[in-house]
Amino acid sequence: VRMTVLGTGIVGQTLAAAFVQRGHETTVATRDVDEALRRHDFGAWSRQHPDVAVVGVDAVPLDAEVVVNATSGAGTLAALDAVGEPALADRVLLDVANPLDFSAGFPPSLSVVNTDSLGEQVQRRYPRAKVVKSLNTVTAAVMVEPGIAGSAEHTLFVSGDDAGAKDVVKGLLVELGWSDVIDLGDITTARGTEMYLALWVRLLGAMGTGHFNVRVVREDDGRM
Amino acid sequence: VRMTVLGTGIVGQTLAAAFVQRGHETTVATRDVDEALRRHDFGAWSRQHPDVAVVGVDAVPLDAEVVVNATSGAGTLAALDAVGEPALADRVLLDVANPLDFSAGFPPSLSVVNTDSLGEQVQRRYPRAKVVKSLNTVTAAVMVEPGIAGSAEHTLFVSGDDAGAKDVVKGLLVELGWSDVIDLGDITTARGTEMYLALWVRLLGAMGTGHFNVRVVREDDGRM
Repeated sequence: VRMTVLGTGIVGQTLAAAFVQRGHETTVATRDVDEALRRHDFGAWSRQHPDVAVVGVDAVPLDAEVVVNATSGAGTLAALDAVGEPALADRVLLDVANPLDFSAGFPPSLSVVNTDSLGEQVQRRYPRAKVVKSLNTVTAAVMVEPGIAGSAEHTLFVSGDDAGAKDVVKGLLVELGWSDVIDLGDITTARGTEMYLALWVRLLGAMGTGHFNVRVVREDDGRM
Repeated sequence: VRMTVLGTGIVGQTLAAAFVQRGHETTVATRDVDEALRRHDFGAWSRQHPDVAVVGVDAVPLDAEVVVNATSGAGTLAALDAVGEPALADRVLLDVANPLDFSAGFPPSLSVVNTDSLGEQVQRRYPRAKVVKSLNTVTAAVMVEPGIAGSAEHTLFVSGDDAGAKDVVKGLLVELGWSDVIDLGDITTARGTEMYLALWVRLLGAMGTGHFNVRVVREDDGRM
């Protein structure tokens, strides 16, 4: 699968490295390539990953089948607008961002919440994109290595209007090591996983690590 | 422990029955005793539980050490106001309610959210009560019989400003069969568990049963 990852932060770096390692032709796109490469973290990452091209958002490959939104929630719509409709229409748009608002410090609140979600905002702005919300319930390191949250099986969620796009994402999740993925339904169900972040940030505070996740335990649950 | 349970719905019935069964002197309080007893479900429940007194909210026993708010979120503050400060001050106030707003149908949104919570509203209204938010992340049947959600261990949360009150609640949770209880911190952390309901209601929709819960899987998690 040809993939474009939007965002040069830890989430973008982590996902791009994992996808290229699994044989996907992966490009990272960012607003200002020079500025990103001057940043110590991303500059070092990019040198360690010469197989990942870094391009401006206005030069996103048009042949990518999957676009991953790994920007901050606050920057998501502006980043997508810079990418533009032609590179998003008919693509699977895997949205892993959360609308976290740190303006009042930690723990953050959500800038979109309750009767709307970032996932829905993205889908409304780009109706021809096939938005799938997933991976937003775990920290970057856990996204690509579920085992570091613990040896017991734990759960991810997908939300989206397009069943085929959700299947593509589920396939990528399996490659990343995920085995328990619950399809919550259409993109409005992204409200559920985004609002779960209010619990997630407090668990982070209580446990002092982001290396955790939830498992949905259900009736007759014989899984390990 | 002498306990008063506010609310005659399925949550109040379930908790009162469980607490009296474990030897706690339990009273159920409601706005209109006659009206509640005329309801088929509560009338039948009350006849089956003659050891649970049913009293008006203006006649809540003043010697109860624990008051359980099992009213609906929308009715919580009015119900507490009817109970009054003398029966709430210095008591453990176990708040299991969620501020669910069904005015636009299912799934509900939250009437208090993001930068406030029902738990905090209750604590602000009755500063001398020792509010502990817990049990609000599972359906009534699971509250008192965790095993019906699955054989794997799963997790509850407590939020509250008073450490001693949280210990009292944790003791009650152990009696109900809970072994993994995470203390999230002060009462503001109730935002986390109340907002988790946005995910819970969508899991209910996706799985077709409320008999589930989450387990927080963490690093080096050797638990079964």
